[in-house]
Amino acid sequence: MRQLLEIAEDARRAKYTVAKLGTNDKNRALLAIADALEARADEIIAANAADIENGRAAGLNDGLIDRLMLDKKRIAGIAEGCRQVAALPDPVGEVLWMRKRPNGLNIGQKRVPMGVIGIIYEARPNVTVDAAALCFKAGSACILRGGKEAFRSSMCLTKIMREALASCGLPENAINLVEDTSRETATQMMKLNGYLDVLIPRGGAGLIRSVVMNATVPVIETGTGNCHIYVDASADLEMAKNILVNAKCQRPSVCNAAESLLVHRDVAAKFLPMAAEGLAGDHVTIHGCARTTEILGDAILPATDEDYGREYLGYEISCKVVDSLDEAIDHINRFNTGHSECIVTRDYDASQRFLEEVDAAAVYVNASTRFTDGFEFGFGAEIGISTQKLHARGPMGLNALTTTKYIIYGNGQVRS
Amino acid sequence: MRQLLEIAEDARRAKYTVAKLGTNDKNRALLAIADALEARADEIIAANAADIENGRAAGLNDGLIDRLMLDKKRIAGIAEGCRQVAALPDPVGEVLWMRKRPNGLNIGQKRVPMGVIGIIYEARPNVTVDAAALCFKAGSACILRGGKEAFRSSMCLTKIMREALASCGLPENAINLVEDTSRETATQMMKLNGYLDVLIPRGGAGLIRSVVMNATVPVIETGTGNCHIYVDASADLEMAKNILVNAKCQRPSVCNAAESLLVHRDVAAKFLPMAAEGLAGDHVTIHGCARTTEILGDAILPATDEDYGREYLGYEISCKVVDSLDEAIDHINRFNTGHSECIVTRDYDASQRFLEEVDAAAVYVNASTRFTDGFEFGFGAEIGISTQKLHARGPMGLNALTTTKYIIYGNGQVRS
Repeated sequence: MRQLLEIAEDARRAKYTVAKLGTNDKNRALLAIADALEARADEIIAANAADIENGRAAGLNDGLIDRLMLDKKRIAGIAEGCRQVAALPDPVGEVLWMRKRPNGLNIGQKRVPMGVIGIIYEARPNVTVDAAALCFKAGSACILRGGKEAFRSSMCLTKIMREALASCGLPENAINLVEDTSRETATQMMKLNGYLDVLIPRGGAGLIRSVVMNATVPVIETGTGNCHIYVDASADLEMAKNILVNAKCQRPSVCNAAESLLVHRDVAAKFLPMAAEGLAGDHVTIHGCARTTEILGDAILPATDEDYGREYLGYEISCKVVDSLDEAIDHINRFNTGHSECIVTRDYDASQRFLEEVDAAAVYVNASTRFTDGFEFGFGAEIGISTQKLHARGPMGLNALTTTKYIIYGNGQVRS
Repeated sequence: MRQLLEIAEDARRAKYTVAKLGTNDKNRALLAIADALEARADEIIAANAADIENGRAAGLNDGLIDRLMLDKKRIAGIAEGCRQVAALPDPVGEVLWMRKRPNGLNIGQKRVPMGVIGIIYEARPNVTVDAAALCFKAGSACILRGGKEAFRSSMCLTKIMREALASCGLPENAINLVEDTSRETATQMMKLNGYLDVLIPRGGAGLIRSVVMNATVPVIETGTGNCHIYVDASADLEMAKNILVNAKCQRPSVCNAAESLLVHRDVAAKFLPMAAEGLAGDHVTIHGCARTTEILGDAILPATDEDYGREYLGYEISCKVVDSLDEAIDHINRFNTGHSECIVTRDYDASQRFLEEVDAAAVYVNASTRFTDGFEFGFGAEIGISTQKLHARGPMGLNALTTTKYIIYGNGQVRS
């Protein structure tokens, strides 16, 4: 077993080689990885079967087992993901600007690889390949630490990726999996200053919080989304209903799903029954304020501040009638997690104020919050959705996995 | 005395108002602050005198006392700094890009204020105003925590700034100074998750390390610079000498000053005596490798790995003769702090490889590392120099104090 520090040293050495690779070499390696994953599907399925057997024995629920499970079709999907990453434009090398200063220095800002990227995630073997491919395309080495329930699967996938790199004459240490799945090693990884240039947690709120609280290396906080739909007094109520039902029910387990409905009092009596009818199709439980209950009756559960702060990730929603746009904005800025927020309105000023004053990564007028996604935004890929304000905010594509350096061309300038 | 959590709540409330301010309102307030600082110079000087008296009693050295000291001229300089910040373009509101997606959504990325910015710094009262002005212009509230030796001065400056804001009808809680100067409160500030959007330490290596190791809020690591001048085999040796002497001696106490000289073996016998002669003008002590000593003789102290890793911040330099460009790049990537690095060369390939392969915020060909500075780079201001790769790398101007949000204009789109 490679110890974490050994892995960190290996990755640090490999990063210089990876950073220098041309686009063609990186793409060739990604395609070789994709082919190897498909060719060796039986090997992956065997390793995965052991994980699943252990998982069942440990009492994992069906949802978790499903997330863990790999079959030929899913492996083909993972391989296809690698091919898609190969097809994306290379972010490395772009000069964002270059200017000539009065003293004759030409100063430019160039996009360059990050170096070594750490990813901590849960028991989803597909993330192992997905994250490795994105980091590699962005010119960085990676250190992956997946959930221990998927360890055999992830180890097998990593072995295949590393062998594919080696078969292309590239350093296998560009892609590394933490082999010791203890919690202590995860904590040690969060403190790998001098080795890790960034650490990105992907997963549930508990995992993300643990990384944010323990890490001493730079972190990009991702994920939790307490997203609101605010139905303004002037809203097209049919549109509002469609957006609400889509944002809540189309895939309720994801972070860009709506968790809370705010309705202007002027349209509450008309809209809330429409909303309830729309949500009833998926048996959504409504936690409403007193005015909601007045309108919808006793089928509504009472909403507390705790409800307004909750990310249900299921068929539940909190609901509040507000007196004004101001109250809606204040409520959102108090309870949201800085992810995605939507106003449904026909009023120009309301739309402008909402866009301006709501503090979130993505602010929508008249569209479902479900669009907050790297693919939907046109980035071609997504490593996660940042809910912090540093470095990257919102869906993160390949650019978010790079940094910049200043390049300065002089001819003998000294400072006076 | 306002407690830290009280200040944090106040700042969080104020941030929404500050974020909405128009450019004219912000500039008017900055000019009012500048005027008030000059008008109340006597008050500031009196507070400062108490700090200086305490400082002398506590045995602060002359350098620290000088950094602490304020007089009419320095106060005028600080006020002028505010006027310069007022004159800078407002970074807030710029839409970096907007694209129409196939589904008709118009998605744009807009530059918006950070929210609440924390700055931890040492006993330099000028930083109190400088940092507050930059954060304010960038549309954010700030919480400042300065060195306790300058507390009375900083408190007086903060009081004047807050009263100037109030006189303009703006929330004084946009600018806050931590009033409890204990170490415990500083540590508590580093963990103000949910209040602070970013924390920037400005100061020496010890302060920065303490923030990086203790903070749970996002941090931008600034500062330490172990900067190298590499004199290539093909270098114009006169130019190399000028650049070396400027980078080492023009202001040796700052982070962009050179700390280490690397010389290609082919020019070592010719260049090292030129370098030694140039550095002798400022009595620079040279810590050299064995080959350096062979050429320069016994006046040279032997260099250890510790020397190669040191930021002397004074009239000392480490020196190594290298066999190749590769060795120079490897040495720099091993020992540097990711700040500023320079090659002096006439060789095209060497210049390209150095720019590409050296891992640092600013990489120079044929110019002094002393140019790594927000003003020299044309940003008009500087809050610090980032040596990390996340969010901002290199000199940070107003843009580095902002974040972005995605704004999405739809007309009823839902996800299928």
